[in-house]
Amino acid sequence: MKYGIIGRNGRMGNEIYNLFSEKGHELVFSYDNTGEKFLEKPQVLIDFSLPEAFEKTIEYVDKFHCSLIIGTTGLSEIQLKKLHEIAQNVPVIQSYNFSLGIQVLLKLVKVANELLDDVDIEISETHHRFKKDKPSGTAKMIKKVIGKDVNISSLRLGNIPGDHTIYFGNLGEVISISHRALSRRTFAEGVLKSAEFALKTVAGFYTFQDVFEITMKR
Amino acid sequence: MKYGIIGRNGRMGNEIYNLFSEKGHELVFSYDNTGEKFLEKPQVLIDFSLPEAFEKTIEYVDKFHCSLIIGTTGLSEIQLKKLHEIAQNVPVIQSYNFSLGIQVLLKLVKVANELLDDVDIEISETHHRFKKDKPSGTAKMIKKVIGKDVNISSLRLGNIPGDHTIYFGNLGEVISISHRALSRRTFAEGVLKSAEFALKTVAGFYTFQDVFEITMKR
Amino acid sequence: MKYGIIGRNGRMGNEIYNLFSEKGHELVFSYDNTGEKFLEKPQVLIDFSLPEAFEKTIEYVDKFHCSLIIGTTGLSEIQLKKLHEIAQNVPVIQSYNFSLGIQVLLKLVKVANELLDDVDIEISETHHRFKKDKPSGTAKMIKKVIGKDVNISSLRLGNIPGDHTIYFGNLGEVISISHRALSRRTFAEGVLKSAEFALKTVAGFYTFQDVFEITMKR
Amino acid sequence: MKYGIIGRNGRMGNEIYNLFSEKGHELVFSYDNTGEKFLEKPQVLIDFSLPEAFEKTIEYVDKFHCSLIIGTTGLSEIQLKKLHEIAQNVPVIQSYNFSLGIQVLLKLVKVANELLDDVDIEISETHHRFKKDKPSGTAKMIKKVIGKDVNISSLRLGNIPGDHTIYFGNLGEVISISHRALSRRTFAEGVLKSAEFALKTVAGFYTFQDVFEITMKR
Repeated sequence: MKYGIIGRNGRMGNEIYNLFSEKGHELVFSYDNTGEKFLEKPQVLIDFSLPEAFEKTIEYVDKFHCSLIIGTTGLSEIQLKKLHEIAQNVPVIQSYNFSLGIQVLLKLVKVANELLDDVDIEISETHHRFKKDKPSGTAKMIKKVIGKDVNISSLRLGNIPGDHTIYFGNLGEVISISHRALSRRTFAEGVLKSAEFALKTVAGFYTFQDVFEITMKR
Repeated sequence: MKYGIIGRNGRMGNEIYNLFSEKGHELVFSYDNTGEKFLEKPQVLIDFSLPEAFEKTIEYVDKFHCSLIIGTTGLSEIQLKKLHEIAQNVPVIQSYNFSLGIQVLLKLVKVANELLDDVDIEISETHHRFKKDKPSGTAKMIKKVIGKDVNISSLRLGNIPGDHTIYFGNLGEVISISHRALSRRTFAEGVLKSAEFALKTVAGFYTFQDVFEITMKR
Repeated sequence: MKYGIIGRNGRMGNEIYNLFSEKGHELVFSYDNTGEKFLEKPQVLIDFSLPEAFEKTIEYVDKFHCSLIIGTTGLSEIQLKKLHEIAQNVPVIQSYNFSLGIQVLLKLVKVANELLDDVDIEISETHHRFKKDKPSGTAKMIKKVIGKDVNISSLRLGNIPGDHTIYFGNLGEVISISHRALSRRTFAEGVLKSAEFALKTVAGFYTFQDVFEITMKR
Repeated sequence: MKYGIIGRNGRMGNEIYNLFSEKGHELVFSYDNTGEKFLEKPQVLIDFSLPEAFEKTIEYVDKFHCSLIIGTTGLSEIQLKKLHEIAQNVPVIQSYNFSLGIQVLLKLVKVANELLDDVDIEISETHHRFKKDKPSGTAKMIKKVIGKDVNISSLRLGNIPGDHTIYFGNLGEVISISHRALSRRTFAEGVLKSAEFALKTVAGFYTFQDVFEITMKR
């Protein structure tokens, strides 16, 4: 596919560029703090930048009439509303976590939680020392899926990209489900899956969970 | 409920007696190498003994016209056929593994295996030093559910009752699902679940997986 | 050896009896709430009972002039002082944790803590749902060995006898050291080691750490 | 310090450059397949390249009369002999694994192995799917430290940089020691430690284990 990146020289922009290149996709447009590079009109625009660039992003989507994949965090209510508006014309996929594995984890936790009763449940998450929030957003998502008041243990350790484990234990046995991120590449893979999905679908607003569920049914 | 045990003074017989007593059930009949103890006709007969006692078990089921839960290993083809015969008159539940958690594990592995593609899969199992077979029967069951030629690592270590972990890994992340048995109590709980199921169902031959699946749907 | 138990019918008393019997040692004296059983004068007296029985214990040690291994918790200052007094006449070994593995764990943590600098350290402990104190006493011992203000995560889960893990992580790697108790048998083994030590040593007051360190040097 | 790199644009060359820059060290010389860049005479020369570049490396060490840190794998007997020769004039530090954590792991395994007897020991190692050798060289080093015929389980999974766990288990408990590499950065840190060591020491041939042990004693 022919694609563009807003935030090309950021850490995620770089990761996306590497994966997409490896898979034979062509970067035909980019925009970041070093300026704009236009080769051709992209089919999909990917934005992993900052809320400050949001106006530019909308402008480009309008101009190119292309799909949008957006993982920028910290968008305002007004900006999210704007996303829903342009989703009437083009496919828009928005999420704060593009990891396929986390979607699978959430699904497994849901299944285990339904099958097991009279168990104690514990969530443990470990992240790098630079992470300021405790517990992680993902741990909160897991807790929400369980639907009970579950204790979350948060460990902060070196440079761990992100580990999450959910334990279900009764008097005779313990079942645990774990996810370990190895690198940001996993998020780039979710973006690629989203871009492939966007090319095949109609205008509308989608989350990454939608992409995951619709893709998995095929 | 009123129940009986064949193999009352064995390790599993004892475990079953302890759990059932705790839950308020009444042992009204037992048979083991110390002889027969009859107080009353049982509703359910539980057999965790040896193939040698099988004739006696069938005799008692006929006499009491009660349900049978049987976890005795090493039954012959003829004995298994006999079980199917008496299952025309009473509910018979037969299995080599009465752990609910292992059933949940198998279900989770099935779900993960369907959702994830392009992953490497590894199975690791750890058991006590006395276990002679490698890999464990449960590991083989897991492999069968995955339906691919998966490597199984077998560790033999001290007195570990039984750990099983299945790993799914790609270039960005690893998902793992683990089961850890804490004691034989977990098997006794599966027996109790089976006994409760037997009281509510009609004559027929059931495995523990049937009990698990039918029970879970309720 | 010929030994006696105060608290013979308690959970630890039973565990000790089973292990000592297996190893060919002879129970020649016992005392618990069912009364006193005297066959012969013991070489070692083992007390895993309650502070209420302490007077009796001291009486018996005096009478038999034998070694004492005591794991009773909740002893008063006065009772501890009394132990030091009788230690002038016989070997007395006192501890709240007779696990050899925990002693090894503490040693490994000490070594790792000295070798690694600029690391984040986290302690995680998991125990059964019935354990009321958080964090565990053992986790506090580990923290003391590290000598820094380390975060302790406490998970309460089903029937887990006791897991402890210490993580050391920097930007490039993570080292972890774990201990997992499988049963109370491990504590009985520490008691046996202490009893064997007592038979070979002179009068004096010892902790289990002393036994561990002196034994290991041999 | 002022340093040079042979193999500047390789994966390890890049990792070393990033870490050294972060710590304020100055790259004053480099050589790789894009040619030579000379700004100033380096105090230390670091070679993470290929055996083919070895002659060039020796030439530069002679010319600059500087220390050499060399992690190039696949050196011939003759090349290793040559390293010992130039070590008569300058400090030379050679190793196939510059991870500090692995050195700590080996030390911990040694301590545990001495303290524990009558235990079963198991080694488990997990690496990315691209790793062709089984078991890993590090697992073999661990086995050598243990000095017994220990079973090694090798798992190949996605993109895992390298996990190693050693288990010691008896009938009552299990102790395990684990190392998890998070990235190549950990090897760059070992190179930095070696470079700092080289600046302070006299001419001679050293392994990374020497650096580790001498450094730790200070």
